[in-house]
Amino acid sequence: MRKVAIVGIGQTPVREHWQSNLRDLAVSALRDAMDDAGVETLDGVTVGNMLSGALSEQEHLGSLIVDYAGLDGVEGMKIEAACGSGGAAIRMAVKAVASGLMDTVGVVAVEKLTEYSGNHSTAALATAADADYETNMGLSFVGINALLMRRYMYEYKYDKRDFAVFPVNAHMNALHNPNAMFHFPIDTDTYASSKPVADPVSLLDASPIADGAAAVIVVAEEMVDRFKGKPISILACEVGTDTLALDNRKNPLWLRGVERSVKKAYYIAGVKPSDISLFEAHDAFSIMSALSLEASGFAEAGQGLRFAAETGVGIKGGLPMSTMGGLKGRGHPVGATGVYQVVEAIMQLRREVPAEIQVPDIKYAMTQNIGGSGATVITSILKCLNS
Amino acid sequence: MRKVAIVGIGQTPVREHWQSNLRDLAVSALRDAMDDAGVETLDGVTVGNMLSGALSEQEHLGSLIVDYAGLDGVEGMKIEAACGSGGAAIRMAVKAVASGLMDTVGVVAVEKLTEYSGNHSTAALATAADADYETNMGLSFVGINALLMRRYMYEYKYDKRDFAVFPVNAHMNALHNPNAMFHFPIDTDTYASSKPVADPVSLLDASPIADGAAAVIVVAEEMVDRFKGKPISILACEVGTDTLALDNRKNPLWLRGVERSVKKAYYIAGVKPSDISLFEAHDAFSIMSALSLEASGFAEAGQGLRFAAETGVGIKGGLPMSTMGGLKGRGHPVGATGVYQVVEAIMQLRREVPAEIQVPDIKYAMTQNIGGSGATVITSILKCLNS
Repeated sequence: MRKVAIVGIGQTPVREHWQSNLRDLAVSALRDAMDDAGVETLDGVTVGNMLSGALSEQEHLGSLIVDYAGLDGVEGMKIEAACGSGGAAIRMAVKAVASGLMDTVGVVAVEKLTEYSGNHSTAALATAADADYETNMGLSFVGINALLMRRYMYEYKYDKRDFAVFPVNAHMNALHNPNAMFHFPIDTDTYASSKPVADPVSLLDASPIADGAAAVIVVAEEMVDRFKGKPISILACEVGTDTLALDNRKNPLWLRGVERSVKKAYYIAGVKPSDISLFEAHDAFSIMSALSLEASGFAEAGQGLRFAAETGVGIKGGLPMSTMGGLKGRGHPVGATGVYQVVEAIMQLRREVPAEIQVPDIKYAMTQNIGGSGATVITSILKCLNS
Repeated sequence: MRKVAIVGIGQTPVREHWQSNLRDLAVSALRDAMDDAGVETLDGVTVGNMLSGALSEQEHLGSLIVDYAGLDGVEGMKIEAACGSGGAAIRMAVKAVASGLMDTVGVVAVEKLTEYSGNHSTAALATAADADYETNMGLSFVGINALLMRRYMYEYKYDKRDFAVFPVNAHMNALHNPNAMFHFPIDTDTYASSKPVADPVSLLDASPIADGAAAVIVVAEEMVDRFKGKPISILACEVGTDTLALDNRKNPLWLRGVERSVKKAYYIAGVKPSDISLFEAHDAFSIMSALSLEASGFAEAGQGLRFAAETGVGIKGGLPMSTMGGLKGRGHPVGATGVYQVVEAIMQLRREVPAEIQVPDIKYAMTQNIGGSGATVITSILKCLNS
């Protein structure tokens, strides 16, 4: 099994891209990543996407994107794992390169949601939950997160304002990321007075649906000298799963999928939580940030909010999070999010981000992409090669 | 890179399964394959499916099926490549095992279509074509195949009756396969007088939509002694792609995706077309059988029908095809078809099929799963281990 590195990254701004279709967005990000790596062709492409069939009447994205990217005849495959599709596509590319079957694999993740916002996109997103035991009862994803948040507040005696730490930090960092969707700061009062969506989840707890595409070029570490882009090692890219339906879990406040995924990732990378310099968590909702911190070994059960407030999750804090805005500030183009996280972590490792959001003394960056309410979790640990 | 083998197979009958949902069908096939292999757990599962999101309001099948199969916490990932999803899922499993990342990977492909037949399923299936340049113009998959068939008849001077060889053979073989959808023989007259669907494609040119699930257990060849099922080597499992839209191809009657896929497969397996003992082609429409024979190197361009008639594609013919009924006779549960093909080829190699359809003197079996009108093609070459 070969070691694996990323030598190229690309992304479109996260926006409401009503003038670009799926293939345009995907090809733009993929070609940018190829230019960054200095490659003309690829041995294969994995595509992360959740909703092209339901919303754009287009499945079969693998071959489509390969063709429109000018990669005539190259293998292209779409992977779907709900909001974890991007991370899953990276995982598949890592397998292909580690195996020796392929030397150079492009990963591109794309989503287009905003043209179909409203009931249509909410229903489409709900296909990430259990259709028979959750969705058919009328439970949407906001509803699921509201149940989790309410239970967490009750169980661990928190106030709604205690969750402000995550969205306030996300919006602060997004301000300096030109590709982020939101460029306005918020404070605890703004947060606490924002409109309810599904009580206690309010508008500023929820990441926005968005359009966008992000891409990386995965290669065998032994070949990095052939490429232009500064190489970043993928020390681990590991998957953990859990039940789709919340009611099948013994303790819905403990994300076993996260725990399984990070334990493998730490072990394979040979690091521990205290080694991590920045953590791009899957902050689709504020409650997910708290639960992810706990199941990832940074805080005890019920202590995620306290950890965030005391250790600090800002750029100069003990564990910087959502450093380019996270899902909340950068935006959440669902199936593409996992690749945005990795692209941003690489920009941090390469020191290519604006000074205001550059994490100092960075060594190990961790990204965590989650599908559904924790049923598929992909945790990656990255580091500059030869550092 | 390690060699790879299959040690377990499972399938549900191909039917209108109105009493079973997606997860039931998938788990049934997967557990049967695990029992056949004699394994209690798996390192990972790949799931092939095209339309669960559009038709059953359920994405995120990877984690769902893993959970319901009793494989708590195991990695499960869904791959989608239109009608090629099943073959693509096998390809991903082969990568995972060849790499050494995993030793034992289950592949299960599932589709549920018949509850949603009519306009709904036709529209869902059309998402395999190019949404912007084909589907939005009103071109369905039957329409695409009608264009190809008409052009072929004009270009190579064939009569509609000349295509009968494929469906007549498929129905004859399906008669002896208890898992097949259709159990009635047809002859050339029945074929020639069957109702038109999109002229010149008639009802007996078109494979039926269907429900079903099929599964295989992929393991490292060096470990086959640990398993119960008779091991079959996967000598090659290779992908070729082409444009989604027909009008982007220089010659729509030449399936470049097939050519690319088989050339790689022959090379890697170290065999040539004349070594192949049976060919499970993607006979979704009669015209696809002819075009597949040509691009796979069995016949010259325009000679596919003549080859079939003269060499013989029956069980005792020069190149047995659709030996368990093919897509036409067994039925075409879209995203599951690629795994059915491999399961059936393995049953032939193991000599586990009824005497009437057992291919004699079998050595190399080839399966070819196609997504869309030839945009994704996965060709596998199989052989008994140590034979």
